Amino acid sequence: MNKIIFQEVLICNKSVEKSKNINVLLIVLLRSLTLFFHTTNKISSYLKSALLLVLVISLTSFSCKEKESKENTVTSNSGHPSLIITKQGVKDIRSNLGSIPIFDKTLATTKKEIDSEIKNGFDVPTPKDYSGGYTHETHKKNYVLMQKAGVLYQILEDDTYAQFVKDMLFEYAKKYPTWPIHPKPRSYARGKLFWQCLNDSNWLVYTSQAYDCIYDFLNEEERNTLETDLFRPFADYISKENPQFFNRVHNHATWGNSAVGMMALVMDDDELLDRALNGVKDVNFNPNKKDNDGGYIRKDGQKIGFYANVDEPFSPDGYFTEGPYYQRYASYPFLIFAQALQNKKPEHKVFEYKDGVLIKSINALLNLSDSGGDFFLLNDAQKGMSYFNASLISTVDIGYHFGGNDPGLLSIAKMQDEVTLDDAGLAVALGIKEGKEKPFVKKSIELSDGANGDEGAVGILRSYGLELVFKYTAHGLSHGHFDKLSFALFEDGEEVVQDYGMSRFVNIEQKGGGNYLKENKTWAKQTIAHNTITQNETSQFKGKYDIGSKHHSNKYVFSVANENVQVASAKEENAYPGTKLHRTMVTIKDEDYENPYVLDIMRVSSENTNQYDLPFYFLGHVMQTNFAYNKLNVPEVLGKSDGYQHLFKEASASANGENIKLNWLLNNKFYTYSAINSNNDELIFGRIGANDPEYNLRNEQTLILRKKNAKDALFVSVIESHGTYSPVSELAINAYSNIKNISVLYNSKEYTAVQIETKNNKSKVFIISNENNDKDAAHKLTINNKEYTWQGTYTLTENE
Amino acid sequence: MNKIIFQEVLICNKSVEKSKNINVLLIVLLRSLTLFFHTTNKISSYLKSALLLVLVISLTSFSCKEKESKENTVTSNSGHPSLIITKQGVKDIRSNLGSIPIFDKTLATTKKEIDSEIKNGFDVPTPKDYSGGYTHETHKKNYVLMQKAGVLYQILEDDTYAQFVKDMLFEYAKKYPTWPIHPKPRSYARGKLFWQCLNDSNWLVYTSQAYDCIYDFLNEEERNTLETDLFRPFADYISKENPQFFNRVHNHATWGNSAVGMMALVMDDDELLDRALNGVKDVNFNPNKKDNDGGYIRKDGQKIGFYANVDEPFSPDGYFTEGPYYQRYASYPFLIFAQALQNKKPEHKVFEYKDGVLIKSINALLNLSDSGGDFFLLNDAQKGMSYFNASLISTVDIGYHFGGNDPGLLSIAKMQDEVTLDDAGLAVALGIKEGKEKPFVKKSIELSDGANGDEGAVGILRSYGLELVFKYTAHGLSHGHFDKLSFALFEDGEEVVQDYGMSRFVNIEQKGGGNYLKENKTWAKQTIAHNTITQNETSQFKGKYDIGSKHHSNKYVFSVANENVQVASAKEENAYPGTKLHRTMVTIKDEDYENPYVLDIMRVSSENTNQYDLPFYFLGHVMQTNFAYNKLNVPEVLGKSDGYQHLFKEASASANGENIKLNWLLNNKFYTYSAINSNNDELIFGRIGANDPEYNLRNEQTLILRKKNAKDALFVSVIESHGTYSPVSELAINAYSNIKNISVLYNSKEYTAVQIETKNNKSKVFIISNENNDKDAAHKLTINNKEYTWQGTYTLTENE
Repeated sequence: MNKIIFQEVLICNKSVEKSKNINVLLIVLLRSLTLFFHTTNKISSYLKSALLLVLVISLTSFSCKEKESKENTVTSNSGHPSLIITKQGVKDIRSNLGSIPIFDKTLATTKKEIDSEIKNGFDVPTPKDYSGGYTHETHKKNYVLMQKAGVLYQILEDDTYAQFVKDMLFEYAKKYPTWPIHPKPRSYARGKLFWQCLNDSNWLVYTSQAYDCIYDFLNEEERNTLETDLFRPFADYISKENPQFFNRVHNHATWGNSAVGMMALVMDDDELLDRALNGVKDVNFNPNKKDNDGGYIRKDGQKIGFYANVDEPFSPDGYFTEGPYYQRYASYPFLIFAQALQNKKPEHKVFEYKDGVLIKSINALLNLSDSGGDFFLLNDAQKGMSYFNASLISTVDIGYHFGGNDPGLLSIAKMQDEVTLDDAGLAVALGIKEGKEKPFVKKSIELSDGANGDEGAVGILRSYGLELVFKYTAHGLSHGHFDKLSFALFEDGEEVVQDYGMSRFVNIEQKGGGNYLKENKTWAKQTIAHNTITQNETSQFKGKYDIGSKHHSNKYVFSVANENVQVASAKEENAYPGTKLHRTMVTIKDEDYENPYVLDIMRVSSENTNQYDLPFYFLGHVMQTNFAYNKLNVPEVLGKSDGYQHLFKEASASANGENIKLNWLLNNKFYTYSAINSNNDELIFGRIGANDPEYNLRNEQTLILRKKNAKDALFVSVIESHGTYSPVSELAINAYSNIKNISVLYNSKEYTAVQIETKNNKSKVFIISNENNDKDAAHKLTINNKEYTWQGTYTLTENE
Repeated sequence: MNKIIFQEVLICNKSVEKSKNINVLLIVLLRSLTLFFHTTNKISSYLKSALLLVLVISLTSFSCKEKESKENTVTSNSGHPSLIITKQGVKDIRSNLGSIPIFDKTLATTKKEIDSEIKNGFDVPTPKDYSGGYTHETHKKNYVLMQKAGVLYQILEDDTYAQFVKDMLFEYAKKYPTWPIHPKPRSYARGKLFWQCLNDSNWLVYTSQAYDCIYDFLNEEERNTLETDLFRPFADYISKENPQFFNRVHNHATWGNSAVGMMALVMDDDELLDRALNGVKDVNFNPNKKDNDGGYIRKDGQKIGFYANVDEPFSPDGYFTEGPYYQRYASYPFLIFAQALQNKKPEHKVFEYKDGVLIKSINALLNLSDSGGDFFLLNDAQKGMSYFNASLISTVDIGYHFGGNDPGLLSIAKMQDEVTLDDAGLAVALGIKEGKEKPFVKKSIELSDGANGDEGAVGILRSYGLELVFKYTAHGLSHGHFDKLSFALFEDGEEVVQDYGMSRFVNIEQKGGGNYLKENKTWAKQTIAHNTITQNETSQFKGKYDIGSKHHSNKYVFSVANENVQVASAKEENAYPGTKLHRTMVTIKDEDYENPYVLDIMRVSSENTNQYDLPFYFLGHVMQTNFAYNKLNVPEVLGKSDGYQHLFKEASASANGENIKLNWLLNNKFYTYSAINSNNDELIFGRIGANDPEYNLRNEQTLILRKKNAKDALFVSVIESHGTYSPVSELAINAYSNIKNISVLYNSKEYTAVQIETKNNKSKVFIISNENNDKDAAHKLTINNKEYTWQGTYTLTENE
């Protein structure tokens, strides 16, 4: 009997939504009483029963009062809409309309767009094209229109919008059952509307929202038709019929899981919801199978479903292992589904899952953008993607509404100048209206990689306008590049030393249907395409995903407390078996210099004799070098494979042991790269574009430092941003480097010391302990009869 | 006696400054009276004398009263300052300070700058460097500081500023006599402070203004010292001692003339003024001598001095034959000196000279800029120069103040957000304050070239965001390029089909001292560097200035009344003897297209068999071609001379007679170039950068259409801007051309007819009469049994 009562109370409890504190109170009370009944055996069982009855009655009454009072202030999650925009949200939005400028503006824009589309009519064409083609773009447009029209119906109470959604849904319901698998064969998981299940999932994520909005506009028969002919077979197709797509840990699966999950929430189908959260069970899979991007479908024993997709790719810091470009893409399904789940089934506490990682991921993602909001290029990523992307509007609004109303997010929302037309967007609009926003300050930050945060990290050093992105992560799943310890440098939101990004023109049909180009594998993923070490003209991990995905770099130091000397240091010991790489990047703000500069120390130690290439992908126009180079009459192809086949050798020089200097101009700013060289190091001016029969690559330049026949090697360089040019005033200011010389004062297994001298004969010495990163350790080192003592892993001192 | 009285009256008249109406009245009166005396012989000569005496007395009295009353309201031009800022101007400025925002702001900025410089102290170093180097940049800075400090002294009545100018001037006066000719040998006219007299002249133009401002702050002895030790020898050096510099028609000479003229005005030295206005007389010169840019010093019999420099390079439309980049540079000395002359000696009526060409030139120059204000690239020109250049602030302000207060200029001044700190700047500031500004609307315009406007022209077609610049001018003096009938295309202020500009990094010392690079001659000036015909891999006029400067292209049609069909057509018959070139460029706004498109018809007819190359310097990334090309494993150098040695051949294809299409992406916009080709025409993808040992060139792309073994040839193409891409939404809109086919329906000596068909099977036919440009002529032409009749040189009709 006790058991029955417990169940009863819990059921009632369950219906008292959101009244968490009261639930806790009840549970404590019940547990105390139960204990009492079990221990005080002296009381007769009748008395027990009577007391119990009183208890049940009073509790039920209390609980129902609570429920009643709640209904007056907070929405019930039963009924529709209840996923993204809720019944209560609709009420609140309506009562605020006209007084919430950013929301009103978004609403007006959306209304204008949808009104025009309703006027033009819609098309539901027979699927045929890859992305960029008509049928692809039309189905893509349709789901966006339905989602927006659904919301407009709720907010504006105008049946026209509901009717538009209804008409389109019925058109889909009529045609969907007749459509075979999409005719384009490229995908490992072909969709029905689109060439891949991924896009079909996109469709369902949006359409489920539209359905939620017009649910009550439809009668039961209509709903039955839609669910039977369209939604359930659709959900089954992308899950049960494509487990190789659905049962993964990958952004593809996240979309699939969320799509099915959201439709499950609308239809109140717990079986389907469980499938979304925990995957399609009892499916055999082949652990060697790969997707068409070259990524494994699934590792043996790997968890599946939505929770698994939160667990694995996100580090505890919220870094998404594929990188910000894909996080931006994945963040929408993660967060839109989490939001729906929170609204509809708060007991899942999805935003608390894994110590609140979904909210943390928003902060991480925003920190992975440059000062203009463009995401840093890590792994496969298209340049120009930024937090102005539509999915980031939703991300920021959800982050604000469900993540504790961080006022910094309001300033981003204000720049986005748009909010989502739902409860979260309303919260943001009200926050802005009330003037609550504060600047979102991006500071230097290290974001760990790996489900447990122990698979390396991305280190971002920010110093005034400079932003240095240093990569020492895990592989990044199928979108990973083979570029351990690579970096990129930005100034004032412009890339100065570049990461190439991916070789793809997303959705531009002319370029391979808008999909990945073959040069993505042969060039963009290869090590030589990045600002890091390539050994013996072979990519790290032999350019093999199977090997690369088993390893990660390791953090060594990340120290940014002193904003004038910020240090990120990391080690990679698996990229080339037998060779250890240790790179330390430092931003130094020194009053003797116009701007902060970057010190870069790359130590290589190997058991074998190798050739080491360290490219420097500066963007801009060469102004001057301090070394004589021999420009070839016609370029040569630099190598045969591993990306080298895509590089032209344009010029070369032999180093004489002096510092080399490369001075260049970009965006009317002068930069200088100063690097220490040994006698007979080779310098190669290269240009991207060889073996590129269709002009898929950008023909940008690089300067490669090459050390031949070396076991150990030490690459040390400084990057300065020191001057400006104006084509309007034609004035060149500080066109030259401020550095006279950089030199290695000391280099052993234990310590490396570098001296940097200015033209005014001031000098600084940076010393790092190479094997002891205990920040409390005391060090003492004598160099040229001078004793240096310090505490911690590194020191920067004036050299008098 | 009559003669004497006339002189007397004129002298008196002369002193009644600015009272033009009264002058006119007096002259009319006198003339009437003189006529009266000559005709009424009956009146005795005594009576005549008596009447005359009365007249003289009354006129003198009237005139002097006028002068007296004027002094209370308008400044007298005697005294100082009187050149740029006048006594009256100073009064008016002071009384308006604090209520003229744009002026107040400029004043505050200037004050802040000069205060800081005064605090830092100045240096007058011994001349040593080329531009970009310390001594060059310091002397350059000094003259700007003196000019500004002088003005501040006048406006703020603070002796600190006068003292600063005085100290610096005395430092110069002390050192100047000891300095030899500048040690750097590159110039045909070496200066003393700078490596060329040109920069010395810059110094004097600014310094004369400073001297004018502090003239009364100095005592006579001080003035004597400065004039004797510095100003007179300085003026003599750049004029008498360097007549090869001073006695030219060239922007160099304009600076020299203005410099000497302005100092003459300050010192009230009429002999020196005459030298400025009319040149150094009695100097022998060698007509074969050239300057270091390759331009002739002077043509035989050519006029010299300031007026000659107004006469010759400016066409009656105000187009400056060297092009807008140099006009921008020259406009400052032209206008600053004209302003000084107008203020000090209005009787010269300098702004009325040559039918007011100096004011017209301002309008012409502003029209030679793209929608963002960047000047079009014609001849030697550095990209990025715009009407935000300091000299344009002065140009616009002078244009407003002395050119009839055109409210359009106020909108440009407002964008410049700065005014000159003088009478003209005050007028602009007051105009803006009073809200008088109107948009400066740039329309399609043809600007004739040549002193008499009969040496070709520049035609600018503007259609919505598109701006097409079509060049059919004279050579453009020593800064001219060999590119008759070339064009460049801009959209929304961005260059789409480029003119390379010059090969020079102005004032960037790292690049050849900031001077012209040798690639300017070997590449940038050559025909193949431009979007026009090169015959037999030889530049037009054999690339020889001597030949090129004797010829010009000829206007044929410029018709822009119908903004939907705008036509510019021109002929060139001297670039290649025996070959005639006729190019017609049309912008067509057609509702079947997203944006206006450009139709380009280049007719070549020759007595001989030749090879014709027509390059197309598109900027951006190749998306797709409809023809298969063979990309070379490594590029080849395209040719041996005439610029071909700087082009790499990267890929080639053989045309099959079908239209070729090149689709590309620039600044997130999609463009397509469609061109008619004959069987076996060759298509070459080229890239700039061969034989460029120091990375002086930009490595941009071109597509060359090559017709071999042809006498006559017809190149017909269409350029469309048709779509957009967003890297944020990743949406590609209208990525493809709207054109199915273009074809030549008819081509004879008399007529050329081109048909353009859209993908929706609509077609238009453009017909041009090739030999009769009478706009009233009636034409009838039957093509494929269809009769076309029209009036005027061309027609565009629907083809049903």
